[in-house]
Amino acid sequence: MNNFEYKNPTKIIFGKDTIGKLAKEIPTDAKVLMLYGGGSIKKNGIYDQVKSALANVNVIEFGGIPANPEYAILMEALTIIKKENITYLLAVGGGSVIDGTKFLSAAALYEGETPWDILKNNIRSTKGMPFGTVLTLPATGSEMNSGSVITRKETKEKLAMGGPGLFPAFSILDPQVITSIPKHQIANGITDAFTHVLEQYMTYPVGGLLQDRFAESILQTLIEVAPKVLKDPTNYEAAANFMWSCTMALNGLIQQGVPGDWAVHMMGHELTALFGIDHARTLAVIAPSHYKYNFEAKKVKLAQYGERVWNITNGSIDDKAYAAIEKTEAFFKELGIETKLSDYTKDYEGTAEEIAKRFTDRGWLGLGEHKSLTPNDAEKIVKMAY
Amino acid sequence: MNNFEYKNPTKIIFGKDTIGKLAKEIPTDAKVLMLYGGGSIKKNGIYDQVKSALANVNVIEFGGIPANPEYAILMEALTIIKKENITYLLAVGGGSVIDGTKFLSAAALYEGETPWDILKNNIRSTKGMPFGTVLTLPATGSEMNSGSVITRKETKEKLAMGGPGLFPAFSILDPQVITSIPKHQIANGITDAFTHVLEQYMTYPVGGLLQDRFAESILQTLIEVAPKVLKDPTNYEAAANFMWSCTMALNGLIQQGVPGDWAVHMMGHELTALFGIDHARTLAVIAPSHYKYNFEAKKVKLAQYGERVWNITNGSIDDKAYAAIEKTEAFFKELGIETKLSDYTKDYEGTAEEIAKRFTDRGWLGLGEHKSLTPNDAEKIVKMAY
Repeated sequence: MNNFEYKNPTKIIFGKDTIGKLAKEIPTDAKVLMLYGGGSIKKNGIYDQVKSALANVNVIEFGGIPANPEYAILMEALTIIKKENITYLLAVGGGSVIDGTKFLSAAALYEGETPWDILKNNIRSTKGMPFGTVLTLPATGSEMNSGSVITRKETKEKLAMGGPGLFPAFSILDPQVITSIPKHQIANGITDAFTHVLEQYMTYPVGGLLQDRFAESILQTLIEVAPKVLKDPTNYEAAANFMWSCTMALNGLIQQGVPGDWAVHMMGHELTALFGIDHARTLAVIAPSHYKYNFEAKKVKLAQYGERVWNITNGSIDDKAYAAIEKTEAFFKELGIETKLSDYTKDYEGTAEEIAKRFTDRGWLGLGEHKSLTPNDAEKIVKMAY
Repeated sequence: MNNFEYKNPTKIIFGKDTIGKLAKEIPTDAKVLMLYGGGSIKKNGIYDQVKSALANVNVIEFGGIPANPEYAILMEALTIIKKENITYLLAVGGGSVIDGTKFLSAAALYEGETPWDILKNNIRSTKGMPFGTVLTLPATGSEMNSGSVITRKETKEKLAMGGPGLFPAFSILDPQVITSIPKHQIANGITDAFTHVLEQYMTYPVGGLLQDRFAESILQTLIEVAPKVLKDPTNYEAAANFMWSCTMALNGLIQQGVPGDWAVHMMGHELTALFGIDHARTLAVIAPSHYKYNFEAKKVKLAQYGERVWNITNGSIDDKAYAAIEKTEAFFKELGIETKLSDYTKDYEGTAEEIAKRFTDRGWLGLGEHKSLTPNDAEKIVKMAY
């Protein structure tokens, strides 16, 4: 097991009819900017619940944060934060709204020339404007971590940021929100969380026995509840386990003391930036190819995953490892998630070369658990995913 | 799954040679009271490592906190805290030293008549004097939770306290400390952590699917590493997983959203108070009888535990549940932990009645996951454990 440092101060308020607890978490003298997305919260009743809970607080609203939170739009919100002397941010939405709010939390206190530097130079934020979240879409885990990914259409870029100052002060998780989420978004959420676990687990054994079992626990739970929650989002038990699994998949716990490999996300982000494919679907496209390409390096963990999560008991290590990749791909397909780039665009020729060029241009640091994969490797992996 | 609220702000610093990181965590202008136990830290080098890390900090020492931290001794430390204007506490020890430090953290800021009230009236502390810990004995999980148990010899009482203000600011976990722990204490630690998990798991199913799997993960890991760490405490991988399992067993995570049943601890505490039996050993005495006595209420979870943790695949629910209890008892015995009260004292007659009387006198609130067990039930359970 590797050495690690872990601290996660976010308060989780989980369960049925918990949105009303909002009022207790935000200081009454705060001036709040409430951020949300395309407006679905006005149809499903969440907007009304939030407004009702905050009836006695000074709240300004900023809606319209898109999936893959866009830098230019967030800069509009930043102008309001400064003009209106906002002191507290409240994200009501999914990962995109929460990620956008984290950027604003950092940008509001940033003293450098332009907030873009935070992303471009990956500046770690040790302090941010305080913020809470009301989660409306389980998937990214952003509600209990300090990371964020921001998109800039102008330059077709999608960059990560974060820091210990960017944990939500609180996050409210009411599994009942799932009843109003379209099925394809639920499938995205399951795929996103599942891949988050894989990125922190599918490397090589370092004796993180408990971490491995926790990771496998989340995968097993997602596999168990996925068909139930897709069939009937009002199944509260399935919804609650889906929601809690998404949070635990990326709140930092399972990655402590073990290597990680975020290559699938890095390549996937480029597919979203280039084609606008849903984030989760890009992961399902890249992951199987990535594991096949890096088969020798990852096969011991792939086989362990096959045995413990998919109950694959027959064959050699190689057999089990390969079968585990096939099971994973089949699982995504059962969710209605296609696993080839050509399923999403006919314009895929040249994509692999373009992504390799972007990685090179941006100053290549190496991908994979050993930081040993080159842009040329990425090119081959993406091509395998056509 | 039940509703829950969860926040755990303790910073964990885990791994080889991490005690030196102490200096970064304590404010340089702090006036520190360093608390420890019987002095084993002076033999195993931990004392020197701590003193060296704090060379530039104003530190006063208070040693001699006994196993089952004693109220009268802690009151001496409290006098020093007040007289010397201490601003920061540092526990260097196991659960007893850390629990004692938590009491002092609360007592230092308590404004009521006598600090005994905090225990007697179970007053929740929302604020305490800041403190950190250097863990020398994995077992209780006290290094990452806000609970504490204090003993008062004068009245033969052992009472619990806690509150959101009593989380350690940081805890340093270096698995190398295990190399100098006597084997019977390692066995105690494994038993204590194992039982902590059982207390949060062995109730009835409420659809906490992920919580169940996390609990089973800790149990499986403890079973896997127990013989290794007992055979060779310098086995770093085994030691690290043992240590991290003990912390995760009682940092609050696995109990969220599920019922708990701390009856084994409640009865066990009385055996320690009456006979001075090691805390962990009292749990091993009570647990099997408790599960047999409450067999019908717990058999579904007992069978699930049997299947998933002990790989018991044959028989009915009842068969699996009963076999699971036997496996648990056998596991304790393999660690060298006896499981009958008569193994520890010849003076056991009347113990069950005495414990029932104490529970009644103290104002009985009910034990078990339904708070339905009476002092009479406790009497029968303790008798079964003779």
